[in-house]
Amino acid sequence: MYNYVHGGDVYSLPEGKKVIDFSANINPLGLPRGVKNALKAAINVCADYPDPFCRKLTEKLARYHNLEQKYIFLSNGAADVLFKLALAIKPGKALLLAPTFADYEKALATVNCKIDYFGLSAGNDFRVDDSILTKINNDTDLVIICNPNNPTGQLTEETLLLKILDKCRSTGTYLLVDECFMDFVDKEKGFSLKKYLSEYDNLIILKAFTKTYAMAGIRLGYCLTSNEDIIDKCRENGQDWSVSTLAQAAGLSALDEEEYLAKSKEYIKKERSYLLQNLHKLGFKVYGSEANYIFFAAKNLPRLAEKLEKDGFLIRKCANYHNLDEHYYRIAVRTTSQNKLLIKAVRKLLKNENFASNN
Amino acid sequence: MYNYVHGGDVYSLPEGKKVIDFSANINPLGLPRGVKNALKAAINVCADYPDPFCRKLTEKLARYHNLEQKYIFLSNGAADVLFKLALAIKPGKALLLAPTFADYEKALATVNCKIDYFGLSAGNDFRVDDSILTKINNDTDLVIICNPNNPTGQLTEETLLLKILDKCRSTGTYLLVDECFMDFVDKEKGFSLKKYLSEYDNLIILKAFTKTYAMAGIRLGYCLTSNEDIIDKCRENGQDWSVSTLAQAAGLSALDEEEYLAKSKEYIKKERSYLLQNLHKLGFKVYGSEANYIFFAAKNLPRLAEKLEKDGFLIRKCANYHNLDEHYYRIAVRTTSQNKLLIKAVRKLLKNENFASNN
Repeated sequence: MYNYVHGGDVYSLPEGKKVIDFSANINPLGLPRGVKNALKAAINVCADYPDPFCRKLTEKLARYHNLEQKYIFLSNGAADVLFKLALAIKPGKALLLAPTFADYEKALATVNCKIDYFGLSAGNDFRVDDSILTKINNDTDLVIICNPNNPTGQLTEETLLLKILDKCRSTGTYLLVDECFMDFVDKEKGFSLKKYLSEYDNLIILKAFTKTYAMAGIRLGYCLTSNEDIIDKCRENGQDWSVSTLAQAAGLSALDEEEYLAKSKEYIKKERSYLLQNLHKLGFKVYGSEANYIFFAAKNLPRLAEKLEKDGFLIRKCANYHNLDEHYYRIAVRTTSQNKLLIKAVRKLLKNENFASNN
Repeated sequence: MYNYVHGGDVYSLPEGKKVIDFSANINPLGLPRGVKNALKAAINVCADYPDPFCRKLTEKLARYHNLEQKYIFLSNGAADVLFKLALAIKPGKALLLAPTFADYEKALATVNCKIDYFGLSAGNDFRVDDSILTKINNDTDLVIICNPNNPTGQLTEETLLLKILDKCRSTGTYLLVDECFMDFVDKEKGFSLKKYLSEYDNLIILKAFTKTYAMAGIRLGYCLTSNEDIIDKCRENGQDWSVSTLAQAAGLSALDEEEYLAKSKEYIKKERSYLLQNLHKLGFKVYGSEANYIFFAAKNLPRLAEKLEKDGFLIRKCANYHNLDEHYYRIAVRTTSQNKLLIKAVRKLLKNENFASNN
C-alpha cells in the first residue's frame, strides 16, 4: 500500500475537523488577489489545450530572472520537475543530503539510481561543510543541494556551493540546487546561483511558485539551466500539456506581485523571529530555520505532534527523514494570531508535562 | 530541438490571428457552466496543497462507474497517466496500432521499451482484425488499443477485444485500452471494457475528462484497473500532487453534468453526420470516424491544411503518424456554424483547384 510521507494532508482528517495547518510551508498571506482574478478570467479559455511551451509565461519569467528563455522548463509543480529531471539525466549514482526533501529520492528511484548520503548532524547544526567535496567523484552523476534545506531551513554558503559546483564540473556531475524556499530568506543572507548558469552547464536550479505565492493547489514549478539537452529531454520524458492553462495564467499574474512579495518577506521575518524566540524559551533546540519554516527538536515534550493535533494544530513530524528521529519537528511560519495560538498551546502542553513528571 | 507533434497549438500562431481550431478533439459545447462555477469557488482553497489521493473525486468517480475506489488512479490528464503507467509497468516490448496516438510511443520511450506495430491499412478501412492475435506472444509485455482509435475514429469490436484480452492474459501481457473518446460514440455502437476489470487484472482502461467536458486546459485524466500493484506503482513513480485542487473541483462538478453529456452526444451525432456527408460529396475518402472527430484522405486537394490555415481554419495533418502520409487529415466535430464555414471553405478551395487544373 502506497504511503504518503509529506505534510499538508488536511484531507485525511475527519470531515468537519478544523485545524491550523503548520505542516506545509506556504506563504501565510495567502493567494494574492491579482492571481485570483487572473484565475477567474482564465476559466473562460480552459476548453482549449494549454500552450505546451508556456510561451508567455516563459517570456515573462526570463525577463524576471534576467535569463534567456531557453534556460527555462516549466512543469506541474517543482515536484513534477524532479521526476522529469530524473528521466532526463538518468543518473546511476546521486549524492543527497540527509535529511532533505523526500521527493529527490523518490524521483531517483524511478530510474533505479543508487543513492549516496552526506549525513548532516545536530552537532554541526545540520550544516553542509567542506567535507562534502570528498564525497563527489567520477562515479557521481548528480548532487542535489536543497538551499535552504528542507526540513532544516539551513543555508549552504555561496562560497561552498561554488566549490561544489567546480568539483562537480571536474567530475562530470550535475549539480541540482533546489532554491524553492530562497525567496523567504532574509535579503542579507539570501542568494541564488542563477548568475552562474551560463558559465556552468552542469548547474540546474529548481524553483516553485507554490510556496512563494501560496498557490500549492494550482501546481507550478520550473527549473533553470543553460544545458539545452537537459531541457529537451525533460520535454521528451513527459506529456506536452503538464502546465494547465490556469497555472500559466496564475504564474503570469504572480510575477507582477512585487509588493505582495516584499510584504511577505517582512511579515515572515517578524513572525519567524517571534516563533524562534518562543520555541527557545520553551526549551526546544532550534536549528537553521532561515526560510518560512522552523526546524526544532523537542526532547522535553514527547509526542508533541499527536498532542497538538488533538488541540487543532497540524505540525510536521520529521521522524521519517534520514538521520532524524521522533524528537524533530518542522512548523511553517503562519499568521501572527495563528503563531500566538500555537505557542500558547505548546506552553500549556509543557506545563501539563512538567506537572505530570513532578507528581 | 524538441518537436511538438499534436494538434491544438493555437498559441504558435501570430498574435491576433483568429482561427477556428478543428485540430483538437474537444466537445464543441464548451466547458459546462456548473464546472466554471465550481472552479471559481475552488480558487479560494488553492493556497493548500491538493488532496494527494483525490479522495472526494475518487469516491464520486467510483460511484459513477460502479467500481471500487481502489480501481482508480487520477493524474494530470490522461497523457500524464501514460507516462506513469510506462514507469509502473516498465515493459520491455509493447504492441501498438499504427497509426495511433503518438504519446503511447513517447511514454514507452522513457523506459526504452521496444515497439512492435500492428499496421492498419486503408484497404481494411484502418480496422483492427483477428490477425493482431498472432502478434501477441510471451515477449509482449503490453498491448495498447485506442478505442475508438485516434486519429482514425475506428472502433475495435468488443468480441475481438475480448479475444485480445484473453490472449494477453495467457501470455502475461497487460492490455491498455484507451477509451478517452468512447463517450462520443453512438449509444448503439459504444461500449466500455470496464465490466471486465475485476475478472482481468491485466486490463487497464484509460479515461479523460479533457475531451468529454471540454476541459483540456484544466488537465484531468485517470486509469481504471483491478491491479492494485499497478496503481501503487503509478503513485510511487510520480509526485503526490499531480492533480491540482482546481482539476479535482472541476472533475467533481463535471460528473453531475448528465444533461450536458446527453446533449453533447446528440449534437455531435448530428454534426458528425453533416460533416461526413459533405466531405464525401467533396470527393474525400472518409474512414472510421465514430467519435467526435473525422478522419479522411483528401488526395484530390493537395496541401489542404496549409490552404485552410490561410482561410482561418486549423486542421490536423496526419502525415507524422505511422502508416499515413500527407493525404490524411483529422478534423474535430465543432459547432453547426463552424462546421458549415469549414465545408464552405473546402468547397471553394476545391473549385479553385479544379479551375487551375483545367486551365
